[in-house]
This record gives sequence, structure tokens and C-alpha cells, in this order.
Amino acid sequence: MGRRSKNIKKSLGQAPGTIIYTGNKENTELFIDVFDYNVDFFEENKLGTIEDAYKYVDSEPITWININGLNHVEAIGKIGDYCKLHPLILEDIANTHQRPKIDEYDEYLFLVLKMLHFNGEGELHIEHVSFVLGKDYVLTFQEAEGDVFDPVRNRLRNAKGRIRANGADYLLYALMDAAVDNYFILIEAIAEKIETLEDALFEDKPNDDIVYEIQVLKKEILRIKRAVSPLREVVNRLEKGGHKYISERTQFYLRDLYDHIIQVSESVEIYREMIWGLMDMHMTTLGNKMNQIMKVLTIVASIFIPLTFLAGVYGMNFEYIPELKFKYGYFILWGVMVLIFAALFYYFRRKKWL
Amino acid sequence: MGRRSKNIKKSLGQAPGTIIYTGNKENTELFIDVFDYNVDFFEENKLGTIEDAYKYVDSEPITWININGLNHVEAIGKIGDYCKLHPLILEDIANTHQRPKIDEYDEYLFLVLKMLHFNGEGELHIEHVSFVLGKDYVLTFQEAEGDVFDPVRNRLRNAKGRIRANGADYLLYALMDAAVDNYFILIEAIAEKIETLEDALFEDKPNDDIVYEIQVLKKEILRIKRAVSPLREVVNRLEKGGHKYISERTQFYLRDLYDHIIQVSESVEIYREMIWGLMDMHMTTLGNKMNQIMKVLTIVASIFIPLTFLAGVYGMNFEYIPELKFKYGYFILWGVMVLIFAALFYYFRRKKWL
Amino acid sequence: MGRRSKNIKKSLGQAPGTIIYTGNKENTELFIDVFDYNVDFFEENKLGTIEDAYKYVDSEPITWININGLNHVEAIGKIGDYCKLHPLILEDIANTHQRPKIDEYDEYLFLVLKMLHFNGEGELHIEHVSFVLGKDYVLTFQEAEGDVFDPVRNRLRNAKGRIRANGADYLLYALMDAAVDNYFILIEAIAEKIETLEDALFEDKPNDDIVYEIQVLKKEILRIKRAVSPLREVVNRLEKGGHKYISERTQFYLRDLYDHIIQVSESVEIYREMIWGLMDMHMTTLGNKMNQIMKVLTIVASIFIPLTFLAGVYGMNFEYIPELKFKYGYFILWGVMVLIFAALFYYFRRKKWL
Amino acid sequence: MGRRSKNIKKSLGQAPGTIIYTGNKENTELFIDVFDYNVDFFEENKLGTIEDAYKYVDSEPITWININGLNHVEAIGKIGDYCKLHPLILEDIANTHQRPKIDEYDEYLFLVLKMLHFNGEGELHIEHVSFVLGKDYVLTFQEAEGDVFDPVRNRLRNAKGRIRANGADYLLYALMDAAVDNYFILIEAIAEKIETLEDALFEDKPNDDIVYEIQVLKKEILRIKRAVSPLREVVNRLEKGGHKYISERTQFYLRDLYDHIIQVSESVEIYREMIWGLMDMHMTTLGNKMNQIMKVLTIVASIFIPLTFLAGVYGMNFEYIPELKFKYGYFILWGVMVLIFAALFYYFRRKKWL
Amino acid sequence: MGRRSKNIKKSLGQAPGTIIYTGNKENTELFIDVFDYNVDFFEENKLGTIEDAYKYVDSEPITWININGLNHVEAIGKIGDYCKLHPLILEDIANTHQRPKIDEYDEYLFLVLKMLHFNGEGELHIEHVSFVLGKDYVLTFQEAEGDVFDPVRNRLRNAKGRIRANGADYLLYALMDAAVDNYFILIEAIAEKIETLEDALFEDKPNDDIVYEIQVLKKEILRIKRAVSPLREVVNRLEKGGHKYISERTQFYLRDLYDHIIQVSESVEIYREMIWGLMDMHMTTLGNKMNQIMKVLTIVASIFIPLTFLAGVYGMNFEYIPELKFKYGYFILWGVMVLIFAALFYYFRRKKWL
Repeated sequence: MGRRSKNIKKSLGQAPGTIIYTGNKENTELFIDVFDYNVDFFEENKLGTIEDAYKYVDSEPITWININGLNHVEAIGKIGDYCKLHPLILEDIANTHQRPKIDEYDEYLFLVLKMLHFNGEGELHIEHVSFVLGKDYVLTFQEAEGDVFDPVRNRLRNAKGRIRANGADYLLYALMDAAVDNYFILIEAIAEKIETLEDALFEDKPNDDIVYEIQVLKKEILRIKRAVSPLREVVNRLEKGGHKYISERTQFYLRDLYDHIIQVSESVEIYREMIWGLMDMHMTTLGNKMNQIMKVLTIVASIFIPLTFLAGVYGMNFEYIPELKFKYGYFILWGVMVLIFAALFYYFRRKKWL
Repeated sequence: MGRRSKNIKKSLGQAPGTIIYTGNKENTELFIDVFDYNVDFFEENKLGTIEDAYKYVDSEPITWININGLNHVEAIGKIGDYCKLHPLILEDIANTHQRPKIDEYDEYLFLVLKMLHFNGEGELHIEHVSFVLGKDYVLTFQEAEGDVFDPVRNRLRNAKGRIRANGADYLLYALMDAAVDNYFILIEAIAEKIETLEDALFEDKPNDDIVYEIQVLKKEILRIKRAVSPLREVVNRLEKGGHKYISERTQFYLRDLYDHIIQVSESVEIYREMIWGLMDMHMTTLGNKMNQIMKVLTIVASIFIPLTFLAGVYGMNFEYIPELKFKYGYFILWGVMVLIFAALFYYFRRKKWL
Repeated sequence: MGRRSKNIKKSLGQAPGTIIYTGNKENTELFIDVFDYNVDFFEENKLGTIEDAYKYVDSEPITWININGLNHVEAIGKIGDYCKLHPLILEDIANTHQRPKIDEYDEYLFLVLKMLHFNGEGELHIEHVSFVLGKDYVLTFQEAEGDVFDPVRNRLRNAKGRIRANGADYLLYALMDAAVDNYFILIEAIAEKIETLEDALFEDKPNDDIVYEIQVLKKEILRIKRAVSPLREVVNRLEKGGHKYISERTQFYLRDLYDHIIQVSESVEIYREMIWGLMDMHMTTLGNKMNQIMKVLTIVASIFIPLTFLAGVYGMNFEYIPELKFKYGYFILWGVMVLIFAALFYYFRRKKWL
Repeated sequence: MGRRSKNIKKSLGQAPGTIIYTGNKENTELFIDVFDYNVDFFEENKLGTIEDAYKYVDSEPITWININGLNHVEAIGKIGDYCKLHPLILEDIANTHQRPKIDEYDEYLFLVLKMLHFNGEGELHIEHVSFVLGKDYVLTFQEAEGDVFDPVRNRLRNAKGRIRANGADYLLYALMDAAVDNYFILIEAIAEKIETLEDALFEDKPNDDIVYEIQVLKKEILRIKRAVSPLREVVNRLEKGGHKYISERTQFYLRDLYDHIIQVSESVEIYREMIWGLMDMHMTTLGNKMNQIMKVLTIVASIFIPLTFLAGVYGMNFEYIPELKFKYGYFILWGVMVLIFAALFYYFRRKKWL
Repeated sequence: MGRRSKNIKKSLGQAPGTIIYTGNKENTELFIDVFDYNVDFFEENKLGTIEDAYKYVDSEPITWININGLNHVEAIGKIGDYCKLHPLILEDIANTHQRPKIDEYDEYLFLVLKMLHFNGEGELHIEHVSFVLGKDYVLTFQEAEGDVFDPVRNRLRNAKGRIRANGADYLLYALMDAAVDNYFILIEAIAEKIETLEDALFEDKPNDDIVYEIQVLKKEILRIKRAVSPLREVVNRLEKGGHKYISERTQFYLRDLYDHIIQVSESVEIYREMIWGLMDMHMTTLGNKMNQIMKVLTIVASIFIPLTFLAGVYGMNFEYIPELKFKYGYFILWGVMVLIFAALFYYFRRKKWL
């Protein structure tokens, strides 16, 4: 789908549970930051090594450890071992092709989702994010710096809203909600692209690339659909699953999140239908243009070909062509030709071709 | 979808439960009216402030408080606090992008639906309405004045039908029923628009805007579908949910309402299929027209091009062209040309091109 | 959908349970006939007023009361009150837009279905029929005289088959079966219409109305689908519902009826697919025709335009054109032109355009 | 669907359970053959009258009675009465329009399926077969002689495989398996037809009937789908139903049969998609051809029309046209015309039209 | 579907459970290799006859017996008898048309799946693989040598990963995982093919085979879908089925495998949609090209036909044509003709045809 990773083959043929980074940001530096908080306490920190994170995991307050740099597979392995995560989960954290999923284990919950955004050139970028919810901590794993979680960070810092008064499950919800909120912006961008193309089609602009642009849009919406639609199931199971780390209070919020995802999914379906319709519109526009072109040709040819024939007739060199001798023959012929012209003109007018 | 709100971004990145108005009627005045009634008693009142409403909520008779002006978020917050509504519900009341939903809480029921109508210019308008059903009261929240609830108001005033003899659950049903009844009018309007376009296509009117109009209709039906189809689930859960504030007697009515929504949904699906078919019809009409145009060109060219060639031949200046000396050469040639004309005319006639 | 009732607005904004006739047969006379029977006894009667029917409802034998004339809403109201029918049911009896449904109450069953037939002009007519099955009686409500129940009447009169030996539930089944049997005739008529259009398309008849006829057929099949498909659910619930008035013996027959409805539904789906395919076929036929037309134009033009050019060349008035002086120049040119003609003819033949 | 029976109306309006043959093989002779067998015993017999069959039904060994000639409704009635079959089952045996179904009764199982084959002229024929499985016997009912059960007969005669060692339920399975096996041959034939049409389309053969042939294929695959798809449900219920006459051992085989039917259904779906795609391919092929045709026309016309104009200019009779006096005017003009020709030729070549 | 086996008929009409090879690799040699291992022990062996395999089945360590050569039906029969496999399973092992399935028996599990790869000529090859999981052994059956299991073999040899420390159920998982991993490579190849075709369409390369190539791709994706989609159900039942030979530990891995299959299925669906879209793109491209062609024709003809007419007029031989006598008549006419040319040129430019 246009962004196929050359790394896909790296992960094939390996033993299950082997941690292999399949993205293409090979040189990202490892970047770890930690938020440790409860209602009364708040600490924010950047860590040098993954081992520094261990003490936060064990500490009393709620902890959010955000790890950027999926290429650092040994760091992922270490924190995974420390938190006793299943090897398959570590594999999924580093495998950027993994679709959104939820895995429920006794002592933790594992979730994958995708952050979507259009970059400066209007190209769709898909970022792989993994979440681990354990006892009083949340781990997040991202490919590189730059994410949609800043509103959550600010709420943590400013103790705004309910976030500091709730548990790690609410933090997980808040992070997912930030990611889903971002989908709405994406959907808006898609809607704008569709309208731009529609306008181009209505205004008959001689844009040869329009088929190409529609095709690109088709692929984008299919990729978005693929990133968004498994999330319905994920959040539904998160809400309904009754995991011991999800409090009843947070379930209300998850229900709301589920609602948002349904709304995004519906929009994706609607825009998909609209994009498919663009191709039809383009065909119709082409057909319309063709009709215009052919009308011009037909009118010109139908009027002048018979007249040219007439002129040809009186250009013949027969010895005896009586009309040629008529004094006003030439003018009479002009008269006839004007009459024919007028008749044909009227005929095409009545047919609404003119 | 053509009516994208610039306010969508306002609500993103906020803590969940923050009340933000996402519509574009920013300057609407707060307008509150109250109906307080039972079989024997009736009072109708306009209120100045939201605090005036509190005593009605607590009073014995059935109360309907209708609040217009979702931009007054602090008023929504106050009444919400007074009625102990969950913060997420208050967010949904002000969020005009919220799709139809039902949330069941122990002490109240929360519902969202959409009122749809075509305005004077034939544009589709979608109004966001929220309902809260509590003990002996119904709250409704709307963006601005002007709704479809007047028949219900009249029945309340005139004590017509069963409405004054039933509880708040019946009032909720009556209000929803009024909204759904209105969908039928909308559906009629869509049907009329389709027929107008069909007629335009059959009569081959040279309307360049028809593709545009079909496209607009497509979007309208998709938006209607989006507003109507979640309602099936909403009313179904309302009927089946067995909430303590929904009496068995009202369930019969809700079943009937569900039936109406199914009927609207089916119509929407059918009209959607018809609208998609319009594009095909248009393509066929274009193809048909093209055939007409090309037939004219082909007939004219096929008849006169060979004749012109003949005339050209006898316009040549060769010194020795015996036919030119024939006394009746010119007339013989005319004869030949008329014969060719007749033969080709007959040929095209037999092919049914003429 | 082409038969939109102007009465739809009458019923909107009314209190639920108000009986309003929404069809357009406003002047139909009230017509009531009664069949009272058991194995040994049979009485058939036409009644003047609805009150005359009461005694039959109460009488011991099985009773079928058929009421024609839905515009007589007060008569419907009276019999409804006498049989203690729910007001919403009376509303549905008179509301000809009501889709097929089943409502199960403790003391009776209520069913709506549609009778479909093509009238003399080949237009689809949809008749609204309601059934009430109570203790030892069946009420049927129709818009006007003229129905598909005559075979049932004859079997009642002649004591043919099992009908007189069975209860009111079997009578209900027999009436529904008669209506469904009639669908098969309708389906046949649709099949014939499709074949007529296919033949017209294959034979390339210059029928400008074919797009229109396909469109009409599309609407008809959509309307039929709408009338038939809810019936699956209706009969399924009737069979499975275990209502106290449906005997186990009749359930076997209802299962068979369900089977028939499935068969009709499948046919409707298949014919729908065929009708949609007609549009594609038409497009292809148009494309084919266009190819024919363009081939003629191309062959004629490609042959004669170069020849005309040649003739033009030797019609020029240059003082010194050596070929013109050649004795057999004219004949040589004819030879060349015949050769060119033959070469092009052979070329087009090889391309299979001729 | 092209093979509509004129007998359909015969069965309408009759009391349910009336046995009416709806096929068109009215003059088929009644033909009854019997296989009576167990592990040690085998008897094969042709019977003259239906009454001769009674003793086999009652006898100890497994019995298969095959009755050809559904027009002999009184014989069907007799054997039905003897085996105490429900009247609706007898109706279904003779009703060749009955879709595949299963009816479970306490003392027997009733099944309908369809045998499909292409006859000599390549037309699809659908044969109606009914099975009754009772205690130690199987009845089969067919329209006429000629079926797909010969492999089963041979295995019975030669005591090959497990068939003689198993009960009547295994015989039923074996017969159904033979019918389903035959579907694979049918599917192969459809695949061959599709490939023939594809080849015809790729090779651009001037076949005017191709739209017709695609349409016929469409109808055939729809009819096959209709005959095959209900069978999934039938066999599934047969396997899962736990009827007392179906042994656990046979269930393994039925599961396998179910698997085969799924495989056939999938093939039918895939071929259906391929056939629908043929129409698109045809459209594209037409478009391609059209482009070819128009290129020829455009090239010829674009080259020779300007040249003809030039020749026309120097054929004018103005008294003073200086070029005409030039000694080598004629040759210079030829040079100019050759240059124009070469330039246009090069232009079209670069556009890849030549 | 282009690779129809002539052997399909061989298997029809046979008693169920007869082992018949339906592929076309008739002359493959029988090739048996064995892996016998546990944490501490490892033995790899090639066997001469099937009887040599018996002792490994019975031995304590985990055993994997891989049998290549489905044409050796008697060997399949022998090992089947030794392991007490149901005859229907043996039939399915040799029947290469069998779709992916799972059969659960008390003492073993039977699975079928397909290995897919593109061969050197880019043609899709589908290999039939069967698995039997018994107590401490796995049997695999393949048509011929050459499979995707080498990574598993290497892990067994090198005691890499968890494989030697787990039971036969993990081995089964590892083998299936290897096959599914391979699907990702296939999917990549399909994506590349689609992009190649898209590029060809965008660049308007005069490739006449593009319709053919799209058609081939359509068939390939349908065949892949058919091989992949039943696998969802297979692995789901394997995970959920709770068979006594599937340990809880392995279920985690199977859940992961299921996830991969869903991912492959989604890709297949998306690429299927893309491939269908290619045909539309091709149609649009054709329409675009046609417009180009017709514009050229229309512009040339519309400009030169009127000019030729003018030249024809002054080529007429009327005795009295005053213009011909004008001194600068010829030059005035040229002026007029240049003016007409310029006017038309401007007209077409404004229409954006030039």
C-alpha cells in the first residue's frame, strides 16, 4: 500500500517471541520519560537508561513510563522481563505492522493502537503505539518522539480535571482518548481533500492527475479504516472484559470512548463511499466533456460538408453545366447555401446542441 | 461533509467531561420553558434563570423543562449538577457532533437524537437534541428555538389524548415520537428531489449541474442515514432495557416507535439505492445522447464525403477526361449522385439510424 | 416512491393511537361480511353496521369478519373497543403506510401484511391488510373490496380440505397463505417484464424509453422487497412465538408458509440483481452501437478523404502540372485511386471492421 | 428466470397439502425400483405398482425405494399415507419449485434437494429430488429417470465400501453425497464457460452475442446459487439436529458432506463475481476498440483535411494568384504538403497513436 | 479458475473414505523425514518406507514425521491405519481440492491448510498441507518436496527459542505459523503487482494486455482469499476448542497466530478492493484518452472544414463571380481565412481544449 516496509522479511522465519523492529526509523535514540503522581504528589523525569525506570514501576504512586525508540529492542526486552510481560507481547511492541489489538493477561493488559496524521506534504503517516497497563503503572511504547499525548501531560502537570485523582486505568483511558480525538482531525482533513477533488471535477479543470489523486485517497482511506476499525473490538473488550485493573468508574469513560470510535468508523465508511463515488463522478464528467467535443465536431461538419459538396459541384469542369451560365447563378447559390446553413442551425438549436 | 464545524478542534485535547459547545450558534440567548402537569393540574412558564427550574424538578407533578441555547455551558453545568448528571453527559449535551445514543444510569436515562429538516433554500439542517428522563421530570436541551415539539405542547395544553394521564416516560416517548414523525416529512422531501432529478434526466434537459445536484443528494442521504440509523439501537435498548423509569404501558408505545424508525431506516436505504442509481442513469443518458450526436455526424459525413469526392474528380484539370465532353455528363453525374444518396439513405434507414 | 400519499401529513403530529386513514380511497363504502363455521355448521352473511358483528365475535363457532373500507375510522374504533384492542393497533389498521408487522398481546395477535398485484395498466398496487386473531375469531381489515381470499372463501363454503375442521389459527394461516401464494404470480410478472426488456436490449430496438422502464422496474422491485422482506420476521415470530391461540398443529403449516416467504424473498433478491444488471447491459449495448456507428464513419472518411485530396490536387490551377498533360493521366489516377481504395478496404477487412 | 413453469398457477389457491405436480414432464411413466439389503443380503427389484412397495417398507433389511414420475400424484399420495407422511410433505414432493429444505418429524426426516446438470445443448437443467428417511428405509422421489445415484447403486450391488454394513441414515448420506459430488462437475463446466468468454473478450472476436451469453451465464449462476445455498442449512441441521434415525457414526460423514457444500458455495460465489466482472471487461474492451477506431479516423482526417484545404486554395479561380505562375509552384507545394504530412506523422507517433 | 485439475472426476462417484490423489504431481517419489526430540535429545532421519515411521510414533520424545508425495496413497493408508485415523481424514489428506479445515477427534486433531507462493514465472502456486496432531507426534503430508518449514527445522536443530522445550502442540503451532508468515510475503508480491499496474495506467503506456493482467490478478486474489479465509475459523476453533492435546501455554501462541491470519485476511480484502478499482481506473484512463483523441480531431476538422469550404466556393466555375476579378481578392481571402483560423484557435483555447 505504498509504504511497504522492507523490514517485513526480517521478522519472518524467526522464532515466535523474538523482538524485531520492523519499522524504518533505525537510528532513533532511546528516549524515556516518566510521570509519577497521585492527588497530592507529582514528579516528571527524563531517564537515561531503562533500568532507571524499575523503581518507578514498583513505587506507590501512579506511574506512566513512555519509551520512544522501538529500534532499541534490548531495552524493550529488559523492561518486559522486569514487568514479566509475555514474549509475544514484546514481539508485538516492536512489530510496527501489528494491527490494533488487546491481550488480557492476569497481571496486566496489553493494547496496540495507531496514531494517524498527515505530514507537511499531505502524506498519511501511521505511528504504532503500544500500551501496557499493570498494577499502578502504564507503559507506552512509540517509534519516535512526537505524539498526541501532550494534552494529557498538561492535565497531569496542572492537576486539571479528574486525572490525578484517578488510577492508572483512567490514565490509559486518557491516553487512548487523546489518540482517538486526533482521528477527528484526520477525518476533517480527508473531508477537505474530498471537497477539493469534487470542486476540481465540477469546475472541469483540466487536471490530468485527478485519477491519481483519487487513487491515493482511496488507499489512504483504506489504511485509515484498517487502523481504526479493529479499535471498536479492542475498546469494547476493554470496557466489557471486567479486568481487575479496570475500575467501574473508568468503564463509564470507556463507554464514551467506544462511542467516539464508532463515530470515527462511521465517518470513515461514509468518506470511503464518497471517494468511490468520485471515480463515477469523474467518468460522468469525462462523458459530459466528450459530448461537448462531439457536438462541436458534429455541428461544424454537418453544416460545412454539404456546403463544400455544393461548391464542389459547381467547380466541376463539365462542358455543359447550365447553372454556370446563369447571370446570378453565383448569388443564387450563395442564397441556397445560406438557407441550408440557417436550416441546419435551427435544427441543432431545436435539439439543444447549440 | 460540507457543514464541518470549525469548533471541532475546540473540544479536542480537553479533559473528558469538559462542557464545550461545538455548534456555530454562539449568540443564541438562553431560553427556558417549563410544563408542569398531571391529570388535573397544568402550568406553563418561561423561566429567567436556570436556578428557577430547580423547584420544578423537585415538585410532585410531571415536569418538562426545555432549555434552548447550548452555548450557555454554565447553565447546563448548573442544572446538571443539580440533577446529579454524570460529567460525560453534560459534555454530550453541548457536543453537537455527538451521534444518537442512549446512556442508562441508575437514577436517570440520557438520550441524544437529531432533528432533521430542509430549510427554505432546500438545505438539510440537523439539530442536536438531548433528553434526560429522571424521576417525574424530562429535561430537553436544544441549540436554539424552533423545534418539532409543538404538537406535544398542544396536547399537554388541551389535555388531549393520554398524555396528561401518563408519566414522564410517556412524555419522553411523545417527544421522541414527534421527532421521528418529522423524519417522514423529510423522507418525502428526498423522494421529491429524486423524482425531480429523474424527470430532468429522462427529458434530457441540458442541465450541467445535475452531477452536482446528485452529489449533494448523496451527501444529504448519507447524513440522514447517519442521524437515523443509530436510533434503531437507541429505541430498542430503551424498550428492552427495563429501566425502572420506563413503565410497561409505555413499552407498547416504544415498540411502535421502534417500528416507525425501522420504517424510516428502510426508506433511507431505498432512497440511497435510488440516488446511487441516478448516476448510472446519467451515464446511460450521456451515452444515449452521444449515440444521437454521432449518428448525425456519421450520416452526414458518410453521405456527403463520397459525393464531394465525385465532384472533386470532375473538377480535375486533366487535359483528357472524356466524361467532361459528354453532352449530358453533368446530368448523368447528378443522377449517379442522387442514386448514391438514396442508397445510403436506405442503408441508414434499415440500420434504424434515421 | 412514486405513489406518495398526500395524507401522510394528516397522521403526523397527532396523539399516538389516533385512528387516521392515510390511503386515498376516501369514498369507499363500508362493507362487512362474516363467515361463521365449524365442522358441521356454516353461515355466510353481509352486515349493515359494525354493531351487527358483535354477536358473531362472541358466538361459539369460528368466525371470520372481513371489514372493507379503512376510511370508516369510527367503525374500526367501535369493533376495536368491543374486542378490547390496543389504540396503537387501531392506528396501524388505518395507517396504510404501516410496514408488515406482528404484535403479540395476551388476548389476541395483530398482524399487518401487504397484498401486491399489477393492475390492468401494469402498475404495481399495494393493498394494506390487517389481521386480528382472537379467541375463535379472525378480523381482517382492507382498504376496499377485491382481495385474494376467494380460494379460502370457496374452501370454507365447500368444506374442502382441512379448513372447517381446524380453528381460527388455521383460518389466519389460510388467509396469509393465500396472500403469499399471490406473491408468486407477482414474481412471475416481474420475471416476464425483465425478459421483455432483455429481449429489447438484445434486439437493439431503438427504444428511448428503456432507461425509464428499467427505472420503473427498479422502483417496483424495491417496493415489493419492502412489502415482502419484513414478512419473514413476522411469520417466524408467529411460528416460534408460542402464542396460546396458535396450536401446535398449525405450526407445521406456518413453517411451510415461512418456507414460501423465504422462497419469494430469494426470488425478489435475484430479480433485483437482474434488474440492476439491465442498466449495465444497456450501457454495453450503447457502447456496442457506438462502435458500429464510429466504424462506419471511420471507414467512409478514411477511404474518401485521401481520395478527395488527390482529386483536389489535380484540380489545382498551377500553370505547370506535368501529370495533367499525360494522355492517360486521368485513367492512371483512377487506377491509383482504385488501388488505394482496395488497400484500405483490405486493411479494414483484416481489422474485422467490415 | 427463463424456465418458468406454466404450472405455477395450478398450485395456487389450492388447499395446503393438496398434491399437485408443478413440473412439465406430464407424461412420464411411473417407475419404481427397490433395493433391499443388509451386510449379508441383497435384492434389487422393479415394481409395477406402488402397493408392491409396502412390504419392503415393513421388512427387516434396509430398503431404498426410488419413485420416478412426480406426475403420478395418486401414487405419491398412497405411499405417503402408508408411511404416515404429513400432507404438506406430499405437496412438497410434487412441487418442483420447492427450494431445498429439511423437515424433522418424530418418525421420519424429509429432505428436498436439487440435482443440477448441463444438457447436451449446454442448458442448465434442475431436477427436484425428495428424500424420506424412516425406520430402516429411504424413499426417493424424482421427476423422471436418469439420475446421479448410479455410483451408489453399484456400491450396493458390489458391497463395496461401508455402505451395506451401515444403516438407512448412511444410505441417505451416500445419496446426498452423490448429488453434491455432481455439483463439482457443474462448477467445472461453469469455469470452462467463463474462460471461453474471457478468451473471446481478450481476442476481440467480433462476437455480437457475447452480452447475451454473459447474461445467460449470470442467470445460470444465480439459479445454481439458489439451488445450492439453502443446502448448507439443510445439511447443517441434519448433522446437528440429533434426530433419532441419524447415528453418531453417520454424523462424521455428514460433517464431511457439509464441508463439500461449503466448498461448492464458495466456488459459486467466486464464479458469480467473475461473471459480473465479465461485463466490466466487455465494457473496457469496447472502450479500447473505440479508441482504436477513433485513432484511425483522427489520424487520417487530421492529416488529409489540411492538405485538402491547401489543394483547394490553389484550385481557386482568382485572376491573380501569384503562386500559380511560379515555374515550380506545383512541386514546391508538393514539398510543403509532404513536410506537413511528415510533421503530423511524427506528432502522432510521439503520442503513441501510431 | 485456470488451474482446474483433470483429476477432479477421479474422486467423484467413489465410496466416501476412498483415498484418491487429485493433484497432478503423479510421479513424485515418496519422501519421509523424521524429527525426534525433547529438551535434551535430538534425532533427524530420512526414512525408506512408511513402516519405519511406526516406532517413532510410539516413542517417548516428540516426533514430527513429514511425508511428501500424496500420490503414494497406499503409504498414506498404512500410516493412517497405524495411527487409527478416520478414513475420511485419509481421503482429505490426498484430496488437494480440500479447503482448509479442522476436524477434532478424541485421540487426534486433523488440520488442512494451503501454502501459497508465486513461482519463477510469477504464477500463483497453491500447495496442499495436512497436519495430524496426536499424542506426542505431528504428521504432516505434502504433495512434493519444497516447503516453508525450514525455519522450524533450523530452530529444532539449534534448540533455538522455546521449541524443543515445548510439546507437539507447540510444534504444530510453529509449523502453521511458518505457513502464515509466508502469506505476508505473498501479500507483498500482490501489492507490488498492483502498483506496477497502477503505474502502467497512470503513465498511459499503450499496453493492450492490461485488461488481461488485471483479470489474472483478480483470479489470484480470489484464489488466495479462498485459501486464507477459512483459516480464521480453523485457528479460532483450534484455540477455543479446548482439545486435550492443546496446552494452555500454546493457546497464547495460537491467539497470536489468529491475529496474524486476521491481518492477512484484511490485507486480502483491501487488495481485492484495489484490484477491482483498477478496472474502473482503466475505464477512466480510456475515457481520458478518447477525449484527447477526439479533441484533436474536432479542432483540426472544425478549423479546416470551413476553410476548405471557402476555398471550394472560389474554385467554382460560375461565369460571373465578382470577387474573382478583384485585384487583391486572393490576398483578402487569405486574410479572411487567417482571421477565421485565429478566432477558432482562440475559441478552443478558451475552452481549454488546446
